[in-house]
Amino acid sequence: MKQPIAEIVSVGTELLLGELVDTNSAWLAGDLRDRGVFVYFKTVVGDNRQRLRDTVARALDRSDLVIVGGGLGPTDDDLTREAIADAVGETPQVDPTLLARLEALFAARQREMPAINRKQAWLIPSAEPLDNPVGTAFGWLVRTRGKLVVAMPGPPHEMKRMWLDQALPRLALGPAGFWHTTIHTLGIGEGSVGELLAAFTGQANPSVATYARRHGVDVRVAASAPTPEAAAGLARPVLAEVERVLAPYIWGRDAETIAQVIGRLLTDRGQTVACAESLTGGLVADTLTDTPGASGWFRGGMVTYTPEAKRLLGVRAATIDKNGVVSEPVARAMAAAARRKFGADWGLATTGVAGPAALEGQPVGRTFLAVTGPAGTTVAAPPTWLGERRQIKERTVNGLLMLFFRLLRGEPTP
Amino acid sequence: MKQPIAEIVSVGTELLLGELVDTNSAWLAGDLRDRGVFVYFKTVVGDNRQRLRDTVARALDRSDLVIVGGGLGPTDDDLTREAIADAVGETPQVDPTLLARLEALFAARQREMPAINRKQAWLIPSAEPLDNPVGTAFGWLVRTRGKLVVAMPGPPHEMKRMWLDQALPRLALGPAGFWHTTIHTLGIGEGSVGELLAAFTGQANPSVATYARRHGVDVRVAASAPTPEAAAGLARPVLAEVERVLAPYIWGRDAETIAQVIGRLLTDRGQTVACAESLTGGLVADTLTDTPGASGWFRGGMVTYTPEAKRLLGVRAATIDKNGVVSEPVARAMAAAARRKFGADWGLATTGVAGPAALEGQPVGRTFLAVTGPAGTTVAAPPTWLGERRQIKERTVNGLLMLFFRLLRGEPTP
Repeated sequence: MKQPIAEIVSVGTELLLGELVDTNSAWLAGDLRDRGVFVYFKTVVGDNRQRLRDTVARALDRSDLVIVGGGLGPTDDDLTREAIADAVGETPQVDPTLLARLEALFAARQREMPAINRKQAWLIPSAEPLDNPVGTAFGWLVRTRGKLVVAMPGPPHEMKRMWLDQALPRLALGPAGFWHTTIHTLGIGEGSVGELLAAFTGQANPSVATYARRHGVDVRVAASAPTPEAAAGLARPVLAEVERVLAPYIWGRDAETIAQVIGRLLTDRGQTVACAESLTGGLVADTLTDTPGASGWFRGGMVTYTPEAKRLLGVRAATIDKNGVVSEPVARAMAAAARRKFGADWGLATTGVAGPAALEGQPVGRTFLAVTGPAGTTVAAPPTWLGERRQIKERTVNGLLMLFFRLLRGEPTP
Repeated sequence: MKQPIAEIVSVGTELLLGELVDTNSAWLAGDLRDRGVFVYFKTVVGDNRQRLRDTVARALDRSDLVIVGGGLGPTDDDLTREAIADAVGETPQVDPTLLARLEALFAARQREMPAINRKQAWLIPSAEPLDNPVGTAFGWLVRTRGKLVVAMPGPPHEMKRMWLDQALPRLALGPAGFWHTTIHTLGIGEGSVGELLAAFTGQANPSVATYARRHGVDVRVAASAPTPEAAAGLARPVLAEVERVLAPYIWGRDAETIAQVIGRLLTDRGQTVACAESLTGGLVADTLTDTPGASGWFRGGMVTYTPEAKRLLGVRAATIDKNGVVSEPVARAMAAAARRKFGADWGLATTGVAGPAALEGQPVGRTFLAVTGPAGTTVAAPPTWLGERRQIKERTVNGLLMLFFRLLRGEPTP
């Protein structure tokens, strides 16, 4: 299939009522765009058999590839199978092979399969089942009138696996004439990035766009051309200039996380890290340990949410009494204690006020970061953060990891 | 304004390319529905002045209230102000009051304001500015031809604050004839919930719908009637029956998180908790400390990602050597050590295999949970989780918190 027109249908009354966020259509749109497939319509429709049938039928009229997400669960309001069957004029029946596999899945989890789940083993004559290695809902690939319908479960990690591993290999999409990359920066505002890149942000191809994100400001460089190679060639000089101008702030590219980049730097030099957290409450450790292989370089962490816990870690009572827990000396002492206690090469620490109330006379958003390593300790006091509890935690973690990243690379810190 | 028709426009090429997920339109749709406002159209449009202008103009033709999210940043590709001005035929100018406030914001963060940010102080004659206490982008409320346009920044926490605190009080939306609530359950599959509620899930008003979520299965009970009171009255008997049938699995309602519910139970009895985490890597502590006021009942935690760190916590080497780190005895010992070390009433622990590789011959997804408290220790070995690293961490935390919740309430554990 060459350069087909695709349409994304997201199913679920919860999406119209704000009960759930539709992450899938954005992810799919991005994946399709990278493969040279245009998405002209994105529709959200509720759990209503007639409206869903009409939506699928209309999509089949105007598009080549219809991707339906959601509505494959076992309950009465999961109607995607019924609606697709209606739209193509077929009748679903239980497929014995699928049923046996479904029952085995439940048995493996020491549960009896409720009878209601039998509909998850349905097929129609024009549908081929798509495996789901991480859930109970099989997908459908329906070939009808020279067009395709791909139905996949709503949970994002199930949908993504099914799309990449099961659906795409069967679709044989044409080559893309589109190339793009996203550069991640930290420590510079979107306005300043925009000024530095003013020569590029006005042009259409290659295009340069900036986005304020929780992990910093992202810069996307994209180009279109008849072939992917030509598009990449078009983007190359612009990308080089963007990388040159923003060099002090860049920490990664595309799907990379800053924790992954840090993990790679630590692995390369055979070093390890440990952390001590006050206001971030475990989010530093959680962020680091989201990286596969973290056990090779992450020694452990302590969430010292009370002064007693900080003393337990190894911070002297006098340091706390003299400076207060929200202070540079306490951040410094926590990092040193974490490094020592866990026997790591590096120690990281956060202390501050996550809110909603002020603490020890310090305002919400006031934070101190410390990184200690083989060559000494660096302490930072970022500007007082605006935002709510979760945002303050996230910004503190991002600031700490950026500081650590710079020290690991031997770069000057702000 | 009574029962207006609203339309949501989400702005950003990144939304069409999969660079960013549109959480805002779902949240807004839900909020509007609860206020009796119907949303007929949800549109995603890119950072293109002409297409954005056309979208806003079309929305103004067919809807009473147009809510535009995103495109209020300082850079050239932030075009919402320009497009709205085009659509209503006015010209933006820098407002001196807004400019002074913007400059003060930068000064407070010890940064000079880049000249590019001046456009964030623009207004048009028919626009009233909307304050943004947590960011630099002001919103606009535009009154034109008896209709309203509300433009708000894209970052979700900025948009939500602005919508609730600034926009809604100025809109005077009519009373809703809609009532709904969402009940959160854990420990039961969606199929089993569907079977227990089969008598209700087929009916339209009141409606009962089930959704599989990361935190368990949600059940939404909703009803429509001429007034909110009548709708609530219609829903009440169905809700009572749903609560009766699912009682052993229910942990909360609506915006409540399980960490909040646990925090309230601990506060009520003047007790505290501490945790020790292996595979969850800090996510238990992070989840608990997302709750405002957590410092009143959360003593601290330790992320023991290595056998040495587990011994540091107080787990005996013999326990690890004999059973392996992924074992019931180690989970039990970790919970006891966390309770003892932090001087808490309760100790929580997780150990297991987050993946991607197996560990000590145990498969990915194998986990052990332990909760120890004044009356003893409970250990659980959930069925081996399907899914990827992050999902396994989240499911483990949910399972642990549900187990803790049941023990706090004195309920039997599975």
